[in-house]
Amino acid sequence: MTYVRNTWYVAAWSHEIAVDQPLATRVLNEPIVMWRDSTGRLAALADRCLHRLAPLSLGRCQGETLRCRYHGWLYDHAGRLIEIPGQAQMPASGLQVRVYPVVERYGWVWVWIGEPARANAELIPPLVGIGHPDYEFDYGQLDYAAEARLITDNLLDLSHVSFLHTESFRMSEIWARARPKLTEQERGIRSERWVRNEGPMGELNATNRVDTYFRCDFFIPGVLLMSARAYPVGTAAALSDAQPPQFSSMEEGFTTQAVTPMTDRTARYFYMMGWPRGRVDQASRDATRVIYEKGFAEDQRMIEAQQRSIDASPAARFMSSSADQGVVLFNRLVEKLARQELAQ
Amino acid sequence: MTYVRNTWYVAAWSHEIAVDQPLATRVLNEPIVMWRDSTGRLAALADRCLHRLAPLSLGRCQGETLRCRYHGWLYDHAGRLIEIPGQAQMPASGLQVRVYPVVERYGWVWVWIGEPARANAELIPPLVGIGHPDYEFDYGQLDYAAEARLITDNLLDLSHVSFLHTESFRMSEIWARARPKLTEQERGIRSERWVRNEGPMGELNATNRVDTYFRCDFFIPGVLLMSARAYPVGTAAALSDAQPPQFSSMEEGFTTQAVTPMTDRTARYFYMMGWPRGRVDQASRDATRVIYEKGFAEDQRMIEAQQRSIDASPAARFMSSSADQGVVLFNRLVEKLARQELAQ
Amino acid sequence: MTYVRNTWYVAAWSHEIAVDQPLATRVLNEPIVMWRDSTGRLAALADRCLHRLAPLSLGRCQGETLRCRYHGWLYDHAGRLIEIPGQAQMPASGLQVRVYPVVERYGWVWVWIGEPARANAELIPPLVGIGHPDYEFDYGQLDYAAEARLITDNLLDLSHVSFLHTESFRMSEIWARARPKLTEQERGIRSERWVRNEGPMGELNATNRVDTYFRCDFFIPGVLLMSARAYPVGTAAALSDAQPPQFSSMEEGFTTQAVTPMTDRTARYFYMMGWPRGRVDQASRDATRVIYEKGFAEDQRMIEAQQRSIDASPAARFMSSSADQGVVLFNRLVEKLARQELAQ
Repeated sequence: MTYVRNTWYVAAWSHEIAVDQPLATRVLNEPIVMWRDSTGRLAALADRCLHRLAPLSLGRCQGETLRCRYHGWLYDHAGRLIEIPGQAQMPASGLQVRVYPVVERYGWVWVWIGEPARANAELIPPLVGIGHPDYEFDYGQLDYAAEARLITDNLLDLSHVSFLHTESFRMSEIWARARPKLTEQERGIRSERWVRNEGPMGELNATNRVDTYFRCDFFIPGVLLMSARAYPVGTAAALSDAQPPQFSSMEEGFTTQAVTPMTDRTARYFYMMGWPRGRVDQASRDATRVIYEKGFAEDQRMIEAQQRSIDASPAARFMSSSADQGVVLFNRLVEKLARQELAQ
Repeated sequence: MTYVRNTWYVAAWSHEIAVDQPLATRVLNEPIVMWRDSTGRLAALADRCLHRLAPLSLGRCQGETLRCRYHGWLYDHAGRLIEIPGQAQMPASGLQVRVYPVVERYGWVWVWIGEPARANAELIPPLVGIGHPDYEFDYGQLDYAAEARLITDNLLDLSHVSFLHTESFRMSEIWARARPKLTEQERGIRSERWVRNEGPMGELNATNRVDTYFRCDFFIPGVLLMSARAYPVGTAAALSDAQPPQFSSMEEGFTTQAVTPMTDRTARYFYMMGWPRGRVDQASRDATRVIYEKGFAEDQRMIEAQQRSIDASPAARFMSSSADQGVVLFNRLVEKLARQELAQ
Repeated sequence: MTYVRNTWYVAAWSHEIAVDQPLATRVLNEPIVMWRDSTGRLAALADRCLHRLAPLSLGRCQGETLRCRYHGWLYDHAGRLIEIPGQAQMPASGLQVRVYPVVERYGWVWVWIGEPARANAELIPPLVGIGHPDYEFDYGQLDYAAEARLITDNLLDLSHVSFLHTESFRMSEIWARARPKLTEQERGIRSERWVRNEGPMGELNATNRVDTYFRCDFFIPGVLLMSARAYPVGTAAALSDAQPPQFSSMEEGFTTQAVTPMTDRTARYFYMMGWPRGRVDQASRDATRVIYEKGFAEDQRMIEAQQRSIDASPAARFMSSSADQGVVLFNRLVEKLARQELAQ
């Protein structure tokens, strides 16, 4: 499938990369080593030594450099080869491994996979994540045996909530029976909806009915900020289904998520659940986390089965319904940006 | 290899498919979901939702319909798409997943893989199996990491009994040294032989010598009924090696077996051991089962090793001996029927 | 990659092949069965029966023959088919499975993979191994998920010792900073070096400094004899870095190693550690073995990671340094011999 390259992908959690503990990952099939030198500075390089392609992620940090652990070739932050042990002269000038622009934000390490010269930190989407003074976070990740696109498609069509998440989120069929309001953005889409007169998430048959407003901002390449807030029954009608005022203050919790394609058939799914700092007790946070992680496991089981089914029937094609409008809009945006890259 | 498509394959045990517990399998590489509705009616459909190819086998039965658990698309027994939640109109008329004709017989679910219009229950071979009033059964199955043809070839050339099954069936080299009588049938072959003056199965060196008559009816696509019966020494000579009278009453036990190609390199092997109802004690049945399952494990080990050897030496070819006459006749029949299908 | 075929590969340990216990292996992707008849005579044949390609390694020795356990076809030491049970005549004359010339030497079974007519036991390299009256041996083997060439390259460029083996051999950076003396041989290369005024192996910071002389004879297709001996500090200078007299008596231990390509991505690494008979106590031998096996595990981890990195970046190429001179010379010899084979 098509992926945008001139964009930032979430490659790791910032806290995963300690000084002298290089971390290997893949993004869009490219092996990448992320490492932090003795000053704490982060770099991301192609994870293979120029010499014999040994992974630099098995290497050792030395001051501000990274030394391959196989035969000791030494690199700096820019990926430049600065020493071959026992050899006075370099075999050529300007030798270097590829360097990937890297930014730490929201608790994540963002890596730019496309042309380094086009890397622009302003293209990192406006999320709310770890490090924000007003919120605290629970977090986790899942490794999928499935293509990233299947996961982003899942998140872009929440009609599945009604059928797949009957044991976790336990929300009504309204998710499948009514369509959200979708708005195209420059590098993403916004999805909004009111759910009137239902129990809150996880309490399908609850007697404590509320009107709930949901909003999901979904950004290239596959990151999102999803928030919800409950109001007294009648609020949606009174607002004529418009967005409630002060909704963006996220007083009731939200999630920040990222889906990163690692290889053609694997992806890493990063998620955080945010809470207004000091306002939610641990038991409530834990209960919510249990619901989310049960739901994420339901997604993973279905999507990995979907991937196996796709692979078993390569001639079969998808068929869209009106619930796929968000999927269609987002993937059309991906296609457009990918085409623009090729034309540049 | 070549397989007949316009035929019935054993896809499961009838008792495996409970109401609201759809079962996934593959036959000839095709993913199939078998499911039973609230009335007990059985259906077999292509195991992928039209929407995004999610397996319907993860779905939920609702009355007489099956609902995909991903986004809730709803199908009837004929595979017809009858609802897309939240969408008043279907994207096109006549949308359906493929339906496979299905029949339950002998305790098995038989699925027709070829053209549905040609499905004819009379082509299900005349076996004896679970549900027959005169017999009771033990049963089991094995999943092979090998092509189905290697298993049917094994069953069609019982000369291997003398060498492979020395620890289980423990029968003499007569199986390898003398050839059975083979008779071509319209959709199968019959193999018969007398083994004179030997111990019974599992007792190679027994002093209780008998003449034993063996018969195996082997049917397209790979199912068989094998029975044996012991007579006083001298019976074979007295009958000039003809079939003994009343042999078909199967008073001494028999086996009914089916080999189903799942993928190019996997197969499922279903077997039952039948006994005249109320005539054989449990200890004898258990002892026989132990012998058979030891023998089946010997077959599996050899055939899976044979498959790996074939795959390791793709240029190598088989070489037939006179013991392969049954293999040759049966596979020639498979080729003929497969050619006829293509010509139709 | 290119491998020489007209050469002897180490296929097993002699003691692994007991009478009536055929052993399967692969060399250069070819499945081979090694077996010893009732007289103890060893043979190596293609590991697939002519009949249906069942592995002969599952077969049974009968006197001086090997019988396939599937349908009983019988072979002699030369691979000749000498019986098809139940069939008076062979389907053709001269039927046989391929036979591989085989020699037992140094405790190993050597198999000739190329043209049998060219097999010449004098091409087995002059090693010292199990069975030598003056030495006793510890030994082991490792199975690699990597191509054999990566392992021989590792052994041909010991500059990696300084960086990869900091936890095991614990030797100084002199291994990477200075180059050994290399001498081309007819079918191999010799590598020699003095390491002056360092602790002995495994004792990087030891105060008991010595001058150590190392020599490694590396032979086609990938076997080596490596020995070392410590001398008083000053010896290297006094000898002007020449080889010390009586060095070949190996009074301080040595290793004999062989790397055999099994498939394109697997290899078996055989090693022995030799000691002057009766001169080294078991505790010292055990301590040395622990160091070696830790070092071998470091090699395996790096080389398997290197293989995965190569496979993940098929377009990437190696870049040589002056430390690779041994690698270059040896692989040039491999290429030359392989070209000669093709021209013959």
